[in-house]
Amino acid sequence: MDTAEFRRRGKEMVDYVADYLENIEKRQVYPDVEPGYLRSLIPEEAPEQPETYEDVVKDIERVVMPGITHWHSPYFFAYFPTANSFPAILADMLSGAIGCVGFSWAASPACTELETVMLDWLGKMLNLPEEFLAGTKGKGGGVIQGTASEATLVALLAARCRMVKRILSDDPERPEADIISKLVAYSSDQFCATLGTTPSCAFDYITEIGPICNTEGIWMHIDAAYAGSAFICPEFRPLLDGVEFADSFNFNPHKWLLVNFDCSTMWVKNRTDIIAAFKMDPLYLKHDHQESGIHTLHTHTHTHTHSICHWQIPLGRRFRSLKIWFVFRMYGLRGLQDHIRKHVALAKEFEALVRVDERFQISAEVVLGLVCFRLKGSNDLNEALLKRINSARRIHLVPCQLSGRFVLRFAVCARTTESRHVQEAWAHITQLATELLRQFPQ
Amino acid sequence: MDTAEFRRRGKEMVDYVADYLENIEKRQVYPDVEPGYLRSLIPEEAPEQPETYEDVVKDIERVVMPGITHWHSPYFFAYFPTANSFPAILADMLSGAIGCVGFSWAASPACTELETVMLDWLGKMLNLPEEFLAGTKGKGGGVIQGTASEATLVALLAARCRMVKRILSDDPERPEADIISKLVAYSSDQFCATLGTTPSCAFDYITEIGPICNTEGIWMHIDAAYAGSAFICPEFRPLLDGVEFADSFNFNPHKWLLVNFDCSTMWVKNRTDIIAAFKMDPLYLKHDHQESGIHTLHTHTHTHTHSICHWQIPLGRRFRSLKIWFVFRMYGLRGLQDHIRKHVALAKEFEALVRVDERFQISAEVVLGLVCFRLKGSNDLNEALLKRINSARRIHLVPCQLSGRFVLRFAVCARTTESRHVQEAWAHITQLATELLRQFPQ
Repeated sequence: MDTAEFRRRGKEMVDYVADYLENIEKRQVYPDVEPGYLRSLIPEEAPEQPETYEDVVKDIERVVMPGITHWHSPYFFAYFPTANSFPAILADMLSGAIGCVGFSWAASPACTELETVMLDWLGKMLNLPEEFLAGTKGKGGGVIQGTASEATLVALLAARCRMVKRILSDDPERPEADIISKLVAYSSDQFCATLGTTPSCAFDYITEIGPICNTEGIWMHIDAAYAGSAFICPEFRPLLDGVEFADSFNFNPHKWLLVNFDCSTMWVKNRTDIIAAFKMDPLYLKHDHQESGIHTLHTHTHTHTHSICHWQIPLGRRFRSLKIWFVFRMYGLRGLQDHIRKHVALAKEFEALVRVDERFQISAEVVLGLVCFRLKGSNDLNEALLKRINSARRIHLVPCQLSGRFVLRFAVCARTTESRHVQEAWAHITQLATELLRQFPQ
Repeated sequence: MDTAEFRRRGKEMVDYVADYLENIEKRQVYPDVEPGYLRSLIPEEAPEQPETYEDVVKDIERVVMPGITHWHSPYFFAYFPTANSFPAILADMLSGAIGCVGFSWAASPACTELETVMLDWLGKMLNLPEEFLAGTKGKGGGVIQGTASEATLVALLAARCRMVKRILSDDPERPEADIISKLVAYSSDQFCATLGTTPSCAFDYITEIGPICNTEGIWMHIDAAYAGSAFICPEFRPLLDGVEFADSFNFNPHKWLLVNFDCSTMWVKNRTDIIAAFKMDPLYLKHDHQESGIHTLHTHTHTHTHSICHWQIPLGRRFRSLKIWFVFRMYGLRGLQDHIRKHVALAKEFEALVRVDERFQISAEVVLGLVCFRLKGSNDLNEALLKRINSARRIHLVPCQLSGRFVLRFAVCARTTESRHVQEAWAHITQLATELLRQFPQ
């Protein structure tokens, strides 16, 4: 494909993408296919000779779309949202074209620098304590990880490294393996200190855990993967109180802040803790500005660059901060707050509908965009209801278990979800519930 | 931005991308900026109100481009290539629009299934032993990781898990921490068994290491991050001999197989080894086809789906196999082989130029697209030469260290690199060398 053909095909793809997203609610939200459906639809081997673009593109609807769960359908209420917005798609196109691998400052200075500044922007939007910001002379700062799992792993390894060093400084002869075998990670049943758990969007008491961690020298990592986006609204910011006790904090703008996957933002108070755990410096990554730089830029005096590859598991990384930059500028803080508030209002609307139907109960406090609810009655009954909902395929939900109870989760997900979709979903759920209760009276 | 505006802006972006790549060789390959350049060019905080797209787009040239190292310039000979092709960019646009998070089969069946089949396609292109393929009843199979570092970490954790289980089965009372403290990972000075190291593209003797690993029950992981792409050419496939002894193998199509970053493909012979190390099954990820499915699809009899999130560190994942599908079909195996062969031929052409200049020496066997070379003389002299090359900014190289010697690496990187770029680069290098030797005669 030469550049001229790319211009044509690219524009066709823009239209395909626009059509797909514009008409997504007409597609069945959850697919009909059975496991293994795809293998028989395509050849067993890659073609020897090139195929035409027409051949490829017609297979999107024939092969791919029948097997897609449409996460951006306004009838998708499963899991948690995954972000999608036009500015982010545009930025990703640009990122794909630049195609730099930003593992060091020299590998593409803009990639490292824009990321540092964007994480400061976002840190300020969240009103994070100053210590978490890089600024021009801070000791802290932020980095984009792929997912919250990676951020947690990074925090865990950094915590381990810090503790091992601390113990070795008192007792240099002690074998490292012996120290490691004695280390303990404390967690709730959702692992680390969590703001907004996946099953029910519950919140740990970090204002209580935090001071204990600080006194005992325990690394506190806070994961607010879903809920974190809401903290840009002053009315939800109190949920983040206690972050001042944390060593590291992360959440996923790729869930609820309109920045397409993947973009999990992580901040640390002391970036040397992270770098100590990950640093590697082969000659082929050295560059003139190795010790000058970006995260701790002390203007014109002592300067130190920290290559972002020392902050993460992967060596390579895409230019993901472009997505943040495009989205934040084109929505503005207000636009992003509006998006969060709209979703929370829709969840409250759904909660109100559930509360007036005596057959149902709310199973967990509705704090943000997730409603946990169930039919009063057995787990089997609720499992049967969910099965009917998902088999009908008009909306899509997933369950969770709360204190032994089978619970349905209704998460407001798509950017384009409106009140009418919530109302329709509830009408559909209650109709299925009525049929179920008629067949199996409680 | 509404859909109508996205259509317009998307097409403008397609043109911007096409223009950028079409004219990339006119841009200076390595930027002039100093560390910290970017922060002062943009506001300290995200805007409160939305900005226009014009505001954003004009900052691409003002803020971003001055800080880009142009990896796709034909004058870029640093590190290793990172892939970039039009079909991959188109596929990524589609992937961005679908925006599914494929952590389980149900989360988007096509995402899991296409990946499994694409890894079989690629495995066949590499002539991997049948055991590494999923097929419809294999025990092995492939998965896309973000980077080779992640693949290595996954292999390491799986190896540890398998060994701990093996020891526990003989000695169930033994504390796990005690076992772990006794485990040993053997590696060369580039870590695991490596085909095509980063400094010099050297190859470990896996036909010798392999049988020992097998006899001793040691997990053998082979990393061929860069070189792996070449194994689709029969003439380079012997370099992969011995893979039959490996438990896991990975390489990065995002380096040299025209599939944009990130796409690191990993195969295992026994996927239960991996799943044992990573499995987690919260209720919200369960689905009807949980035990039916994709990787071990025994048609109509016993079926098991393995959610791909059990194969990796992250829970979420993008729909990356679309890029493979588009690229393999639009290039065909032949087109991809041509690309590899062209790069190897260009490296040989450069090697020949170096060999006829008596002032220079070749520092490592040229097997694929990398030439390691140096001026006969001191490390300081070669460091001075590299500094002049990179300061002139007409081409971009990075060094490596081989047996204590400072060596220059010339890697053929961009898809559009042609003979004239290699010739120009050599003329430029020799001119700088002549000037250097005139000032500092040896």
